Amino acid sequence: MITSPQNPKLKLVRSLQGRAKARRKENAFLVEGVRLFEEAVAAKWKIRFVLFDRSLSERGKELLDTLEGIEIEEVDTALLKSISDTETSQGVLAVLEYVQIPFPDSLDFLLILDQIRDPGNLGTLIRTAAAADVDAVILPPNTADAFAPKVLRAGMGAHFRIPIVSMDWDAIKERVQGLTVLLAEMEGDVIYTEANLKQECALVVGGEAEGASQSARDLADADIYIPMKDETESLNAAVAGAILLFEVVKQRSL
Amino acid sequence: MITSPQNPKLKLVRSLQGRAKARRKENAFLVEGVRLFEEAVAAKWKIRFVLFDRSLSERGKELLDTLEGIEIEEVDTALLKSISDTETSQGVLAVLEYVQIPFPDSLDFLLILDQIRDPGNLGTLIRTAAAADVDAVILPPNTADAFAPKVLRAGMGAHFRIPIVSMDWDAIKERVQGLTVLLAEMEGDVIYTEANLKQECALVVGGEAEGASQSARDLADADIYIPMKDETESLNAAVAGAILLFEVVKQRSL
Repeated sequence: MITSPQNPKLKLVRSLQGRAKARRKENAFLVEGVRLFEEAVAAKWKIRFVLFDRSLSERGKELLDTLEGIEIEEVDTALLKSISDTETSQGVLAVLEYVQIPFPDSLDFLLILDQIRDPGNLGTLIRTAAAADVDAVILPPNTADAFAPKVLRAGMGAHFRIPIVSMDWDAIKERVQGLTVLLAEMEGDVIYTEANLKQECALVVGGEAEGASQSARDLADADIYIPMKDETESLNAAVAGAILLFEVVKQRSL
Repeated sequence: MITSPQNPKLKLVRSLQGRAKARRKENAFLVEGVRLFEEAVAAKWKIRFVLFDRSLSERGKELLDTLEGIEIEEVDTALLKSISDTETSQGVLAVLEYVQIPFPDSLDFLLILDQIRDPGNLGTLIRTAAAADVDAVILPPNTADAFAPKVLRAGMGAHFRIPIVSMDWDAIKERVQGLTVLLAEMEGDVIYTEANLKQECALVVGGEAEGASQSARDLADADIYIPMKDETESLNAAVAGAILLFEVVKQRSL
């Protein structure tokens, strides 16, 4: 049982809880909690090691029993709590290998999340994208790190099922060739329900504070908007993204 | 300037930061931050008193200058921070009178938020409801308090523009007479885009953990659902609610 705060595994966990830079350097990220860990296991995601404590539920213990050839270590309860990012760690925390899920061969539905900084919104958008059968989520330079603990939690396992790629704008420009780029704007030109979303497209959703960047605007073929009751009203970025994504789903199912 | 932690105004603020019970007893609630306070002022909401400290921005100070006949007191900066619910209080905190915005005379679009416990989701749903021109938001007994600080923050001022009413199920039953009650369900009977949402209706959105209650199910005339990529996927409650609300907007605008 790990009882020393100086244990190298705990040090690694602490650094992965922090900045994106540490996660990139280690090529790894964390999941906490039984449900999220279950999703990683179900997706056969590559696990570096698992830490647990005796507060782990029966369901969690049974899950650990199914793992083969993976290092699993018990940690002192107070110690695991001290390295946890959640209020209720549920007694399990795993370090996962960062692996890029490959893009599908043919792309006809991309989501570009531009300047989304709120981790809850970013995770919710990734979760919604997976539910809407988006081919891949693309993150330009000024968006939060998709593999930060809070983003993973809001993603509810979607991270293990949908390609999420960080790219600079030059690479994005190349990637969206042949797709119509539609930018969601409070004051857009086309009502979203009147845009042709059956065509192969990349949807750009901007952050709540500043909207989309100039680079995104330069790339866009059209601006679309969601009409609201009046101009005092606005929508959360994750909500606006969801309404647009499911309009695509709807148009394509008709 | 208030410098004592025992000041009665600060005591009141502390109690209003806590449980719904305290807010109901005092018939008051709090807003923090310049933007949310601006929304309250713009809506001519009844203000009991305002506390500020010297960290308040120029924009905030100008806003205070516009207030007439309202008690405004400066508080020691560390003290204001200590009673703040936010990481950045922005130097302004107001105690507002709880006032029920009256229902419109004719109701054709209600939102019932059943067992929504996450304050961010509840606030986001209220914000989205205001943007979608819902007539009123109804909160059954097991939903979080709409006037808790986190819910107000996620609501981004929508609380000052849309009626929000807590009701027991008997009162709800009476209130929805003549409306078609549509319950959002993961496994509903009717695809939401195929439901008739032009008719006068009350939409019920359930909480993420347990969905809607038996009382909501008993009241529902039909279950509607949002089709997703496959059964491993799911949507955040605020996201699902938003997709449904804006489908109503869309059908009614055609």
